[in-house]
Amino acid sequence: MTSIEENQASNNLILKKICAALKGSQNIEILTHKSPDGDTLGSAFALSRALIIMGKNVEVLNNDGIPETYSYLIKEKKLDGKADLIVAVDIATPTLLGDKLYSYKDKIDICIDHHLSNEYYAKVSLVDSESSAACEVIFDLIKKLGVKIDPLIANCIYTGIATDTGCFRYSNTTGRTHRIAADLSDLGADTAKLNKLLFETITKERLQLEKLAMATIELSYEGKIATMLISNEMFDISKAKESETEGIASFPSRIKGVEVGITFKERENNSFKISMRSSGNVNVSDVCKKLGGGGHSCAAGATVQGNFEEVKEQVLNILKSFI
Amino acid sequence: MTSIEENQASNNLILKKICAALKGSQNIEILTHKSPDGDTLGSAFALSRALIIMGKNVEVLNNDGIPETYSYLIKEKKLDGKADLIVAVDIATPTLLGDKLYSYKDKIDICIDHHLSNEYYAKVSLVDSESSAACEVIFDLIKKLGVKIDPLIANCIYTGIATDTGCFRYSNTTGRTHRIAADLSDLGADTAKLNKLLFETITKERLQLEKLAMATIELSYEGKIATMLISNEMFDISKAKESETEGIASFPSRIKGVEVGITFKERENNSFKISMRSSGNVNVSDVCKKLGGGGHSCAAGATVQGNFEEVKEQVLNILKSFI
Repeated sequence: MTSIEENQASNNLILKKICAALKGSQNIEILTHKSPDGDTLGSAFALSRALIIMGKNVEVLNNDGIPETYSYLIKEKKLDGKADLIVAVDIATPTLLGDKLYSYKDKIDICIDHHLSNEYYAKVSLVDSESSAACEVIFDLIKKLGVKIDPLIANCIYTGIATDTGCFRYSNTTGRTHRIAADLSDLGADTAKLNKLLFETITKERLQLEKLAMATIELSYEGKIATMLISNEMFDISKAKESETEGIASFPSRIKGVEVGITFKERENNSFKISMRSSGNVNVSDVCKKLGGGGHSCAAGATVQGNFEEVKEQVLNILKSFI
Repeated sequence: MTSIEENQASNNLILKKICAALKGSQNIEILTHKSPDGDTLGSAFALSRALIIMGKNVEVLNNDGIPETYSYLIKEKKLDGKADLIVAVDIATPTLLGDKLYSYKDKIDICIDHHLSNEYYAKVSLVDSESSAACEVIFDLIKKLGVKIDPLIANCIYTGIATDTGCFRYSNTTGRTHRIAADLSDLGADTAKLNKLLFETITKERLQLEKLAMATIELSYEGKIATMLISNEMFDISKAKESETEGIASFPSRIKGVEVGITFKERENNSFKISMRSSGNVNVSDVCKKLGGGGHSCAAGATVQGNFEEVKEQVLNILKSFI
């Protein structure tokens, strides 16, 4: 057997174990990660609905509440007494539970995840880092449980996959990802409506923030570096929330010819969070390490003290030695 | 047989006929539509490469040349003499050939398309309006020809499907679309790189045009209407080309709560091209008919004479009676 085959065989055994545990329980709590996104919520509510169809009582818990965008996912049936099984979805490490749920840390029976960095903190962990989203793993699990995937479950799973892949744009999208999306579409997922909601809708506050941030984009070093500022004042003017900034950090790197795009996001204490994106030629993880941060070769970050002009000069000086 | 089954059976016969014609020819010209997009070019160069693998001489023709973005698609082998077969791809009507190719109008042997509005001007037409892109039909054709789809062909077909579906966002995306994308991914299409090029890259001129246009967005009628102006002056300032405006017209309709988004694009002769997008409650085709235009219920347009303030007032007055 190749290592991939071995991994699959081992995952199949774990899948069987998890199915048995779910079938043998009546009151099940599902934990999602703090600042919840489409994948943790899609995973939780897809599994929740499948378990309800099986006659179980289920509750989905989150540290921060469910963002309004994802309110269509919610389906649960309150527990009848104490939980007899606790499942964590899309949570790589217990710190991601958040303060309110942190006490669950040592009580988690099952973890279902797709992060390579998963810390195997649960009694049983099903982690497939080849999956674009935890929802890919949940898709397999629900099929294995013998529950027919209805349009509501299909919408939940589609949400997790679409959000974690940037609607099939990112490099984590595989043939398998598209094949699952095809099945979900055939099973009644309302993909066009979900895509409009998830990818084509912004608040007027977010629009205002985008305009203010985009106005600060500057090109330097013969167009190879692009910088952008997101200041606290912009949040005050636009009334946008922190949760409405998703994707903005990648704006400078989208410009043709730019090798490294940098976003400077102001923090409260006279410091800036730097997000660096590379088109491939520069390893921005190395650059950010020099600034006390880190990350991946194409997307990395750091936090730097000082006022904007100082921080910008420091960052550009270090970056230029890499270009 | 259902009408869908009948249609499939008939399309299978046509597919066989087309395969025989392609196999029986040596010099093949492939025509693409004017202002070429990813689907017409992806279709042409996928088929071109498959035919070259079969030992044919192929030339792809276009009225306007190939935009730089799509230069990676080009693969052809000059004709050895006069064409003995002429194929049109993704062209619904001969007027879309453009002036330079219009003389081909009555000489087209085969048309491969996915537009419901196809005018069946070719001797043999394979039109599947259930397909998101002509490239879906080309995928079937190349398999039927018995040519192994290599990574280069996979890239061409993926380009057509990804661009015509807005990277799997639009409502024309079906289960079959995702299934083909899955196969293309497995066959070596460089999907992440193509997505970055096609959907995450803009010129600095386009960025400048976006900033100028976004600055004019105004909400009215309790946030149900959003308007945006793209003026000739903005093109002068930004140096953006007409071909760099794709997708901008939908910006106003992306704002949460907006029922109708309107973009006013200035024309040379004191008139404005109106693009109207609806979130579903208002049939903008009806609105645009009153302005002398037309379109679909969710996306329609018209051209209105006058200066900006006059045109805007006229359009809003008519629209308000529909909300």
